[in-house]
Amino acid sequence: MVNIFDTKLTAFNETLIQQVFPKSPLELYEPCQYFLSIGGKRIRPLMCFVGNLLFNKEHSQTKNLAMAIELFHNFTLMHDDIMDQSTLRRNKETVHIKYSQSTAILSGDVMLINAYKLLENIEEPLFSQIFKLLNKTAAEVCEGQQYDMMYEQSEHLQLEEYMNMIRLKTAVLFATALEMGAIMGKAAPDNLFHIRQFGLNLGLAFQIQDDYLDSFGNEKDFGKMIGNDILHKKKTILSVFLLSEAGDVFLQQFRNLNSPIKPDNIASILKLYEACGAKEYTLQKKQELLDTALNHLKQIVNYNPTYYSWLNQFANNLSLREV
Amino acid sequence: MVNIFDTKLTAFNETLIQQVFPKSPLELYEPCQYFLSIGGKRIRPLMCFVGNLLFNKEHSQTKNLAMAIELFHNFTLMHDDIMDQSTLRRNKETVHIKYSQSTAILSGDVMLINAYKLLENIEEPLFSQIFKLLNKTAAEVCEGQQYDMMYEQSEHLQLEEYMNMIRLKTAVLFATALEMGAIMGKAAPDNLFHIRQFGLNLGLAFQIQDDYLDSFGNEKDFGKMIGNDILHKKKTILSVFLLSEAGDVFLQQFRNLNSPIKPDNIASILKLYEACGAKEYTLQKKQELLDTALNHLKQIVNYNPTYYSWLNQFANNLSLREV
Repeated sequence: MVNIFDTKLTAFNETLIQQVFPKSPLELYEPCQYFLSIGGKRIRPLMCFVGNLLFNKEHSQTKNLAMAIELFHNFTLMHDDIMDQSTLRRNKETVHIKYSQSTAILSGDVMLINAYKLLENIEEPLFSQIFKLLNKTAAEVCEGQQYDMMYEQSEHLQLEEYMNMIRLKTAVLFATALEMGAIMGKAAPDNLFHIRQFGLNLGLAFQIQDDYLDSFGNEKDFGKMIGNDILHKKKTILSVFLLSEAGDVFLQQFRNLNSPIKPDNIASILKLYEACGAKEYTLQKKQELLDTALNHLKQIVNYNPTYYSWLNQFANNLSLREV
Repeated sequence: MVNIFDTKLTAFNETLIQQVFPKSPLELYEPCQYFLSIGGKRIRPLMCFVGNLLFNKEHSQTKNLAMAIELFHNFTLMHDDIMDQSTLRRNKETVHIKYSQSTAILSGDVMLINAYKLLENIEEPLFSQIFKLLNKTAAEVCEGQQYDMMYEQSEHLQLEEYMNMIRLKTAVLFATALEMGAIMGKAAPDNLFHIRQFGLNLGLAFQIQDDYLDSFGNEKDFGKMIGNDILHKKKTILSVFLLSEAGDVFLQQFRNLNSPIKPDNIASILKLYEACGAKEYTLQKKQELLDTALNHLKQIVNYNPTYYSWLNQFANNLSLREV
């Protein structure tokens, strides 16, 4: 797949890193720039651009909007890293480690404020739609993080609760990035509905694939250690299936292997995931979500075929990805 | 002074505490409600109401705007309490102590987002003015907190830097609350300028009075222990004057009394503040700022006389206040 966005993303990254923040106080804004400079796939701003281009030529404010979305995303990451006590992100020190916890709180805050600031020049009636959608999505992402933290200790989590958590924490921003782009492209209401549903289901499939790869990915391709989620007792669709659906025998074996969890137990837990049907369920669920996403994509009309087929391929690649 | 706003503030408080947040997840929103319920003088929403009523009858969205301003203010307090490691606010446990640090971060975040959400129904062209002003003010308040933290350890702070810090941390939100209210009251540009300058100078005078009372207030009236700032080595206009303007002899005595600081040394430091001219400078600076504020108030035209004289009296009381 040729990435038609390579040049655009490179230019976007330059703008993102260099121009967003005031120069002083350096102690407040430099950590924001550091955090943006350590990279990221920039999938959300990409979704915003493609959402626009699918329906219309690029609006002059779409770049600012894409930056706002990426800033918002990075604000959540910076604060999540404190809450999750993560020391590394993309193999670089997290902000609360490199600078201080206070810095990570305050620089995160100002990133969120700057995300809003980037919307200032969007004209009505587009602005109102974007603004309301950002407010709603932002609150949902916080709610998702709250559920994620609450569920960490839970042994009685249901699949439905887990799916709702990843919807809030991951999928809504995916969907919103696409929908906001489409708003900038002046898409018709039906198209807005379907692009959002496409994004929402794709976002869920993306997270489930992430869960799957952590257990069954190819370590070399995946770039992370297999079983990281298991070792950190992070909830995944696999562990939630086992806890809620697999029955007492598997549950007991799982508990034994987890008390305490050791790197040596990872292989046995992977076998358990296979034996109890969690692996199969996960693959099936992912396919279901992808099918739903693609079904919504099919219902979109009056699109630019170049970006439409790119999006179609992107969705299929995302699901097949090993990284 | 009869407070013409007593009924309004009581009603405002009820709305603030009961209606702003969704019900779930309770673990995210309940701490927001707790924090609002522990009280506060609600000076900023009051300024917003009076800013509106000074020029026009109350706009239907002014209450939402006043709530947004108070939510924004409480978001900053919730995060500041973590950064400053404060355990008590208004004699109640701070959120990071009562719940957890993660809760204080995330509930603070969602409060800020809800502040923005409360602006959704303000119509153009008022909305654009309010939105830009909130973005600008919010970033400035973060910058002020950053300077405040940086200056904590500084021995070489200049008065100008200190004044800039309290302008950002305290005065701009004061000014913005009044200006936003005036925008809702459709005040003319000249009036907007003067009400903002009034608020800015009053906000500075307010903070300087706070600094003054901590050293020279009547303990009974003030409700707090005298010398609290001294004991916690918090920068005040008094200490910054001593550090930067008073000369080596006073500086050396101040350093001796501060290494280490003991409650017994407070009285001697107060004497030092008097002897070196810091007390006199502070009172003079406060009066200067109040005069400037009142001078701007005088230049406002086409006002409602009831609210004008209330504001005039409010400014004079604020400066004379012992609490």
